[in-house]
Order: sequence, then C-alpha cells, then structure tokens
Amino acid sequence: METSSGMAPRLDVMDETKPTPRELALTDEVKSLRKAGHPIAPLLLNRWSPRSMTGEPLPESELMALFEAARWAPSCNNAQPWRFVYARRDTEHWPVLLGLLVEANRIWAQKAAVLLVVISRKNFEYNEKPNRTHAFDAGAAWENLALEATRRELVVHGMAGFDYERARTELRVPELFEVMAMVALGRRGKREDLPPKPAAMEQPNDRRPLSEIVHEGPFAPPVA
Amino acid sequence: METSSGMAPRLDVMDETKPTPRELALTDEVKSLRKAGHPIAPLLLNRWSPRSMTGEPLPESELMALFEAARWAPSCNNAQPWRFVYARRDTEHWPVLLGLLVEANRIWAQKAAVLLVVISRKNFEYNEKPNRTHAFDAGAAWENLALEATRRELVVHGMAGFDYERARTELRVPELFEVMAMVALGRRGKREDLPPKPAAMEQPNDRRPLSEIVHEGPFAPPVA
Repeated sequence: METSSGMAPRLDVMDETKPTPRELALTDEVKSLRKAGHPIAPLLLNRWSPRSMTGEPLPESELMALFEAARWAPSCNNAQPWRFVYARRDTEHWPVLLGLLVEANRIWAQKAAVLLVVISRKNFEYNEKPNRTHAFDAGAAWENLALEATRRELVVHGMAGFDYERARTELRVPELFEVMAMVALGRRGKREDLPPKPAAMEQPNDRRPLSEIVHEGPFAPPVA
Repeated sequence: METSSGMAPRLDVMDETKPTPRELALTDEVKSLRKAGHPIAPLLLNRWSPRSMTGEPLPESELMALFEAARWAPSCNNAQPWRFVYARRDTEHWPVLLGLLVEANRIWAQKAAVLLVVISRKNFEYNEKPNRTHAFDAGAAWENLALEATRRELVVHGMAGFDYERARTELRVPELFEVMAMVALGRRGKREDLPPKPAAMEQPNDRRPLSEIVHEGPFAPPVA
C-alpha cells in the first residue's frame, strides 16, 4: 500500500466484492470530528471534501469507474438526465474548466487530476416535457460518484463557485440542459501544501441535528 | 436471519464496521440483469427500485438510520437544504401521504411501511439568496438514504408520480421550500403478491452506455 504521495493507496485493480478500507472503518480524521447518531455505512461518513491534492493524474480506468458509479443512480422514469464533461490536467480542455472557477476554488483545484462539470437534461427525451426531478436525480448520480471516489481514497470535492454562464457558453451546453455543479478529483495531498485559507478549512465538517431535517406528519404547524 | 416475510434478514442492530451482504456481493437478480463496465461498489449496483412490500412496520431505529445517512450528504456551503416529511402506516399522517400518489403508485405503495416526501430549501439561510444547487444537493441526500436502505435490504423506491401541488398545501410546505420527490420504504415482499402491472416491472433496470453520458472536453461540437 505504498504511494508516491505517501497518503493514499492506489486501488487501480480492485476485487469487486472486497470492501475497501473506507467501507470498513472511519478514518481517524472523520472519527474525531463526526458523530453519527445512528449506525450507518462508514463510507457515507468517510466522504468529505478535502482540497489538498497532489496534481498526479488518475488512471483512465479509475476515472471511468467513478462515472460508472454515477451511471447506476436512480432517476424518474429511468431518464438518467445526468451528463459529465471533464478535463484532465495537461490537456487542451483543462484551462477551459479551470478558468471557470472562482479564485477561491482555483487556488486549490489547480492541483486536481480531473475537473468535471455536471450537466442535466431538463426534459424527458421520449416526449420533451419538463422532467421535474432532473436536478434531484443528477444529484443522486453525483453522490454515487462521490462515494465511489471516497471508496478509492480519492479527493472528490463538489463546487458551485464557478461561472455558470461561461460554463454554458464555453462548454457549448444547449439550452435543453442545465449546468448543475463542478467537481474536483485527485489524489490526496498534504494539508501543509495548501495556501493558508483552504488549509484552515481542511477537515470534515459537521451537520445540523436530525431533528431539524426530519418531520413526522406535516412539515409546518397548522396556520392559526 | 429468519424473517416473517422469509425474504430479507432484519438488521436492526448492526456492527458499524461490518459490511452487510449487499456491500459484499451482487444479488442474483442484479447479477443477471446489470453489467457494470467498470468495477464499482456492489452496493451501488444492488440498489434498485422494487415495488413489492410486506406492509410490516420498520423499527424507529432503522428509519432514523436512513435519515442519518441522508444527513451526511455534501451540499453547497454545507447548507443541507434537504428536509424529510414522513408517515408511518397506521398513523393519522399515512392517508395524507398515500393520498398524494397517482393510482399507479398507490396500488403498490400502500404496502410500504413508511412514505416520505423530500423537500428542499430554495435559499441559503444565512443571506436568503437563491441556492442554485438545492435540488441537486437534496438528490445527493436522497441517494445516501437509498444506499443505506439497500444496505439494510429494505425496499426503497423514489417517485415523482404524485400531486406536487397538493403535497405543498396538505403538508403545509412554505413557498421557501420546494417539493422534490416521494419515497416508499418497506420490507421486501413477494413479486407474486403485486398487481399484474407492477409485477411485470419487478426487476432491476438497465442504463444507457457510459459513452452517452461522459464527454471529455466541450459537451457539444462547435457550431459550424
């Protein structure tokens, strides 16, 4: 389990049926900062959004496995509205995607191996009527991608801090599709190699209590 | 591993670090109908949307673990826009949620243990400006819930086939929130106990090829 960065084992070839370390136990950094109130799959808690990356490329096979994970998400009428536009470092597409990001994201995301833009088709293909859940379903696909990346000990970090309108024009996204989010992917680097601001945020964040998001019965009290 | 339905083991108390059968291997029904082009977590392939349920209740601890899974999803600025309104069978809230469904869903979802409505907050709380990714982020939370349910061998089935406007009024959802989707949860039942139409659909569905959803570089070709 040796790697050039010394931080994450490479899992290029995996036994499909063998759980990875991230599926078996919480990492130390997660264990110290996240407390689940009910027992859930460790992988769901182990997923967070680091910013430190080494700049190393990802093997094509690993990148494609992430998209494969997204592919199997559920969607209304199995419409599968999600689409992914990506750029690898050191390709002609890289400066286009990197250039969409706000400065606060660009300063760390420039060390990613891959940047991607998640796009979603707004209408059903079979009748071109609006697909009410297209963004919701694209989000399910994104979470599958994030979990598969976490399983492989990759950094996966979703971003809304980018120019959505330039993304549409520069990536030639037709009106029928909507730009959802961007994602940075890469191998984990050292926190101390980050600029000061992102370094200060480099830890798993917490969540609001379950009682604030779960309601039995109506959402709001009756109007007097 | 005995159950009243004879179909799914109960996993009320689980060792958090021990993978469940659904995380270790594909089920026979999934193996025969789904071929992943790249090795991914078996859990992601094992998740599909059955309709056959026994009508048995779910223990509160199990239901809360599903919401706990949703709770740890990623979201823009960690806004956590997702909210869940649920109804258990044999409560005053049940007929309200069941009554929102279109007939084609009601005929099978009436055997669920729990029905829930996913709601999302449209604005950020800290400044009340529009949260562009609220639906996308709610979808990520939904997928976490679906995967945790799959891990526990529960039926989890998302639906857009319901009356969104009545959901808003009857569940008293303020304008600041948007109704995303409904979900049926329960213990797996027998396919032969379903009415003919849902019985005919009771198998894992397929997906479009990866090549249709993944694009390196711009999404569309340059305009001539």
